[in-house]
Amino acid sequence: MRFSVLPTDTAFYDMFGRSADHLVTGARLLTEMLDSGNDRAATARKIKDVEHDCDDVTHEIVRRVNSTFVTPFDREDIYQLTSRLDDVMDNMEAAADYIHLYDIRELPPGVPDQVEVLRHAADLTAAAMPKLRGMRDLEEYWIEVNRLENVGDDIYRKSLANLFSGEYDTLTVMRLRDVVEELEAAVDSFEKVANIVEQIALKES
Amino acid sequence: MRFSVLPTDTAFYDMFGRSADHLVTGARLLTEMLDSGNDRAATARKIKDVEHDCDDVTHEIVRRVNSTFVTPFDREDIYQLTSRLDDVMDNMEAAADYIHLYDIRELPPGVPDQVEVLRHAADLTAAAMPKLRGMRDLEEYWIEVNRLENVGDDIYRKSLANLFSGEYDTLTVMRLRDVVEELEAAVDSFEKVANIVEQIALKES
Amino acid sequence: MRFSVLPTDTAFYDMFGRSADHLVTGARLLTEMLDSGNDRAATARKIKDVEHDCDDVTHEIVRRVNSTFVTPFDREDIYQLTSRLDDVMDNMEAAADYIHLYDIRELPPGVPDQVEVLRHAADLTAAAMPKLRGMRDLEEYWIEVNRLENVGDDIYRKSLANLFSGEYDTLTVMRLRDVVEELEAAVDSFEKVANIVEQIALKES
Repeated sequence: MRFSVLPTDTAFYDMFGRSADHLVTGARLLTEMLDSGNDRAATARKIKDVEHDCDDVTHEIVRRVNSTFVTPFDREDIYQLTSRLDDVMDNMEAAADYIHLYDIRELPPGVPDQVEVLRHAADLTAAAMPKLRGMRDLEEYWIEVNRLENVGDDIYRKSLANLFSGEYDTLTVMRLRDVVEELEAAVDSFEKVANIVEQIALKES
Repeated sequence: MRFSVLPTDTAFYDMFGRSADHLVTGARLLTEMLDSGNDRAATARKIKDVEHDCDDVTHEIVRRVNSTFVTPFDREDIYQLTSRLDDVMDNMEAAADYIHLYDIRELPPGVPDQVEVLRHAADLTAAAMPKLRGMRDLEEYWIEVNRLENVGDDIYRKSLANLFSGEYDTLTVMRLRDVVEELEAAVDSFEKVANIVEQIALKES
Repeated sequence: MRFSVLPTDTAFYDMFGRSADHLVTGARLLTEMLDSGNDRAATARKIKDVEHDCDDVTHEIVRRVNSTFVTPFDREDIYQLTSRLDDVMDNMEAAADYIHLYDIRELPPGVPDQVEVLRHAADLTAAAMPKLRGMRDLEEYWIEVNRLENVGDDIYRKSLANLFSGEYDTLTVMRLRDVVEELEAAVDSFEKVANIVEQIALKES
């Protein structure tokens, strides 16, 4: 634990929390989007809005990190953490956007499982952010997210093999693949968030 | 504004200017490449040469940042700015290379619009570089590039939907898609350049 | 050459060496995988294991960089070098994984040439790592890797043109392309390793 005679700026913790909360909302909207009865154009727009809100938090953090004298942990780590949180949102938004843009009616069997992994990872991440303040009880979080990334990887690989099995026509393979890959990228981005948190926690301990 | 008793190395401003000027040349050559009567092999070679020149400037900047005592702004920011400028050139060169390599005769309707966005963004970027010296009048630049990125995004999304509309055979979709995606990546890279400039300007203000 | 009154932690050199040795093993396994009589599932599993070993070294380096007072060169450079070495392994593992996952029987003519380039680059990189200690005789290494990257680029471009020549059905093009692109990404990652080594050597000279 680092001691300082200067008060550190604790607003960062709130901002990381807000950023992660946007990911929870994004993952929930992705789940809604899978519903066959869902108005996909409307849901894609909502996810776009959440992505803009997430961008705003990211900009806020970058501005504050540049104008604050004593940050709670290394500037570079703050920058990395906020960028990686933003990446998750970008990947989820891109997946939703492809579903809407390509007007995909039927999604392959692995997609709901990928989105389930994302919901779980988002919840874990949002629950971990407030713990950054005390830098404790975070280990379970990053271990569990790394485990989820392995689960997601298996689902992704099976989906890909299924897509190329000959069941779908080629243009459909190309379209579905974009969705499946962006969801996989979102899972990977959650792991990168967890890796940064682990790195920060190890430095500060 | 930061004050220093040591003279900072002002050669950096010239080098950023030269890097951005290469982007203007690259974007102009991309426009030529769209002309049906154009010798595409020759133009692709010219773009490759400009890309090498841009690489040289990047290496020059990296060497100088490592051997200079007082840099005009943070070493990390100099490194980021030069890398992102280089990324734009790499994306434009890759797009030209795909057009030549796949021997694409007919480009989809959105492509000239994407290249037009790139030309505009390149001009704005080249005009902004000399203003880094005084760190003023840059806001309009990054706002306008962010606006252009949104315009480019719309064009890209429409192009993608058009490619998958069934009008093209699948191998053609795959080829054209590579071109459309590299052009979109170039527009995104211009936005990243603008974001770094914004970040530098905010720090120094 | 930087002088220091504090002893620097020399374990880093060993760890970089071990990381590069994993790349040599990975490239050799990729060559085995191309053998038509090879048990590809088993070889893909072995490459996965090597990739995990490489991850372990990466984590070890990151932990040590955060807990060591005097590092042999800039923390950021250590981090960059280890990350780029890790990227090579990730690309090679992904290529092997695609070959196995898609159950690809016949690989296009350029693939053995790409793997040959990777073997050569891996050997050069492993031979260069111990020289980081004295920071000398490294120039030949990075010049040669940059040359190899150009060779790899030519092979990659010819492979891509061949894939789209009409000889293969579209799903096959998509599958083979994934392999060809990951191998090309591995070659590019080797070049990035060499660029970081060059940058470190220039700083320290």
